[in-house]
Amino acid sequence: SISNILSRPDGGAGLAGQRIRVLGWVKTGREQGKGTFAFLEVNDGSCPANLQVIVDSAMANLGSLVATGASVKVEGLLVAPPVGKKQRIELRLEKVLHVGPVDPAYPIPKTQLSLEVLRDHNHIHLRPRTNMISAIIRIRDALAFATHSFFHENEFRLIHTPIITTSDCEGAGEMFRVTTMVGEAEKLEKGEVGVAAKPGIPQKDGKKIDYAADFFGRQAFLTVSGQLQLETCACAVGDVYTFGPSFRAEHSHTSRHLAEFWMVEPEIVDADIQDVMNWAEAYVKYMSQWLIDKCCDDMELMADKGCIDRLRMVASTPFERISYTEAVKILEEAVKGGKKFDNKVEWGIDLASEHERFLTENEFQKPVIVYNYPKGIKAFYMRLNDDSKTVAAMDVLVPKVGELIGGSQREERYEVIKERILEMGLPLKPYEWYLDLRRFGTVKHSGFGLGFEQCCCLRPALTTLETLFPSQDTQEEQICN
Amino acid sequence: SISNILSRPDGGAGLAGQRIRVLGWVKTGREQGKGTFAFLEVNDGSCPANLQVIVDSAMANLGSLVATGASVKVEGLLVAPPVGKKQRIELRLEKVLHVGPVDPAYPIPKTQLSLEVLRDHNHIHLRPRTNMISAIIRIRDALAFATHSFFHENEFRLIHTPIITTSDCEGAGEMFRVTTMVGEAEKLEKGEVGVAAKPGIPQKDGKKIDYAADFFGRQAFLTVSGQLQLETCACAVGDVYTFGPSFRAEHSHTSRHLAEFWMVEPEIVDADIQDVMNWAEAYVKYMSQWLIDKCCDDMELMADKGCIDRLRMVASTPFERISYTEAVKILEEAVKGGKKFDNKVEWGIDLASEHERFLTENEFQKPVIVYNYPKGIKAFYMRLNDDSKTVAAMDVLVPKVGELIGGSQREERYEVIKERILEMGLPLKPYEWYLDLRRFGTVKHSGFGLGFEQCCCLRPALTTLETLFPSQDTQEEQICN
Repeated sequence: SISNILSRPDGGAGLAGQRIRVLGWVKTGREQGKGTFAFLEVNDGSCPANLQVIVDSAMANLGSLVATGASVKVEGLLVAPPVGKKQRIELRLEKVLHVGPVDPAYPIPKTQLSLEVLRDHNHIHLRPRTNMISAIIRIRDALAFATHSFFHENEFRLIHTPIITTSDCEGAGEMFRVTTMVGEAEKLEKGEVGVAAKPGIPQKDGKKIDYAADFFGRQAFLTVSGQLQLETCACAVGDVYTFGPSFRAEHSHTSRHLAEFWMVEPEIVDADIQDVMNWAEAYVKYMSQWLIDKCCDDMELMADKGCIDRLRMVASTPFERISYTEAVKILEEAVKGGKKFDNKVEWGIDLASEHERFLTENEFQKPVIVYNYPKGIKAFYMRLNDDSKTVAAMDVLVPKVGELIGGSQREERYEVIKERILEMGLPLKPYEWYLDLRRFGTVKHSGFGLGFEQCCCLRPALTTLETLFPSQDTQEEQICN
Repeated sequence: SISNILSRPDGGAGLAGQRIRVLGWVKTGREQGKGTFAFLEVNDGSCPANLQVIVDSAMANLGSLVATGASVKVEGLLVAPPVGKKQRIELRLEKVLHVGPVDPAYPIPKTQLSLEVLRDHNHIHLRPRTNMISAIIRIRDALAFATHSFFHENEFRLIHTPIITTSDCEGAGEMFRVTTMVGEAEKLEKGEVGVAAKPGIPQKDGKKIDYAADFFGRQAFLTVSGQLQLETCACAVGDVYTFGPSFRAEHSHTSRHLAEFWMVEPEIVDADIQDVMNWAEAYVKYMSQWLIDKCCDDMELMADKGCIDRLRMVASTPFERISYTEAVKILEEAVKGGKKFDNKVEWGIDLASEHERFLTENEFQKPVIVYNYPKGIKAFYMRLNDDSKTVAAMDVLVPKVGELIGGSQREERYEVIKERILEMGLPLKPYEWYLDLRRFGTVKHSGFGLGFEQCCCLRPALTTLETLFPSQDTQEEQICN
């Protein structure tokens, strides 16, 4: 691959004289010397840099080669650039093995594309050929492998928690429904044979929807989190994690919420809130260091030039840890000092994005872990602290990123969690299986969740790239996120 | 972990005298010496073996410790078993740090459970505590990491292809529909405020379903394959793979079809049918060797004792490669020789499971790759061979497993693939984006798909374990597959 040539410390100079084959796409091409030769900038997606290919007109039809978007497979000799020029090693073409011509309608121009153009539905399938999207593909691939490496090195087991779930009470947001009834109803409308006579919908008689007629014989949804199921595994085989898609059926006007996104969720036995903060910090540092080590050239492409410095800071600086109560005090002091927030600051509120930014970007200028939140704003499964007012929840806040991780120590005491479920007005029955983990050999355990797209925003271009993943989009737009 | 002690070549004997802490669940416990001491078999899910813990009644209340299902966190001294006994190293308890008592209703007995009991809805959340399910968790984790390692070592990029797709024409089977309309309709029935007045269903006036009212403004489905999207990435950044969930809304009476399963799909540029067979064989061998190296103790638990030998054979024997036409000839010869098949053998049929088994288990007694299938039984995107009758498709068949991998060289010629789509009676419009890859710098490329649950069946217990994943189940049953 071109990366194996150009990413060498010497820019590939040491390979001069070698004969190689390259397959890639022409980014730009220009004929020179009155059509006697041409320069092609060829990219194969292995790195952001292009390999310059010099073509003599005796070797090939220059016209089809120089078109932006053409694919070329060529054999040639690596040659050092003329002395004095600041160019990398080039390829002098000796043989054309393949040319995939390009229709003149090719919509990806030579120039850098705006995010608006990249998001155009007509371009999505060709987007991976742009510098920005191919860089995101490489960064995302790197962070995914870093995630598996981190948990594997630490002896966690990967669990594929279910995507389709019949539980609608995970409480993490609006859920998508999974059904075959709509399709059955359509076939019925069309008069297709072999279709069950009475699908559950549409009910023209106004009766309730009959889920017994659906595929699973009851309601089914797309998962919003694998946590509860993951706990059943942790309370049996020890430390586990899941890395899979999650779904929220929420139309959102912020760009931070996606309909479909990937989540990393570890669950750790014998771990309390302090331990889980240690794990979360170690994981974020590991990911940051991985990016620094392997993706600097891709990150340099991005808009926000401060990003690599910020990554170094995240990788090397101990995170600040403050209780929610301390965080509110700091914010209240700031208000007294004249700082204006859109959202009111008082004990009991959920911290708004502006509050989190103030803590990470103004007050501490580094990642901050806030822990022990008021129980009223957190989920029933978080462990009640001795003050009976707060729960052992924690959020990892990162400058320019916001909340990257949310986690908690889980309530392992049967009577306490039962009480909490009732206190929050939830039904007990759907949670009986979850309560069983507390009835049968309960253990202390904790876990957290990280939105993987959010995590890729550790890269520089946070503020611009997040607009690539808005919740209103269909997933087609997210093909290459 | 207990694995770190008992999995050592000396069974942990060299650790005698060390003080350690262990957290796990009591598999069995018995009081002895008129209640003066007890033996506990403790398992922490790190390996199939239990650590024996010896408890003096002066140290702890033996009654709560010996109950099957109790959790214990203990500190103690590793001691060698009495000479002459064939026992592994034991732990002499010095301090109890935690006991999670167990309610007498604990449904997991000491004895090995039948698969029927394991599949009981009331046990699913506790199933990971059984020997068989915890072994499957470890095997599955190992194979998942092996998969990422294989593709990472070979410089493939991981792509998260979309789970929700608006394309209903992937042609790989019945699809689940993803909607928020049903939920909206329910809220409307209940008279909840804030709900859009007219969800698309139910349509009491008998009109067509109005998908414009749905979350994405049009029909949305769960993916059946990431292949087409993956090709857009391969034709930009080179070799890629996806590893994610896939869905089929097919009620099936065989145990080989799941509603939800994970798929591994690589897509390789500059690769023809021969290359993709090489990749598929290399991947299967890599996975088999990984299991041999890391999971022998878990595999020994399984029912089918021949499994480890079979894995060694798969890892070390070159796969047989025969064309579909040759395969049919072999089957026809067998029929002439008196072999009875339920399904008729003639050129043009799709090979049935019994045919595949005959080829792998009788004729060749090793994995067989069948290639160049009749175009009539294969998908439009497979490359048409020069004979105009067959396409460059291939299936990897494994003894006792069946079809493990299906793949093909993709049709990269614009005019040919357009012709094929029309010939199969499919509409062109939904594939325009896919055809664009052939209009703009087309390249030769190939890929394959492997059902991950099928692959885990490379382990011994194929014939018994596959019944754990029947398609009729809700995904709750698959929590810990």
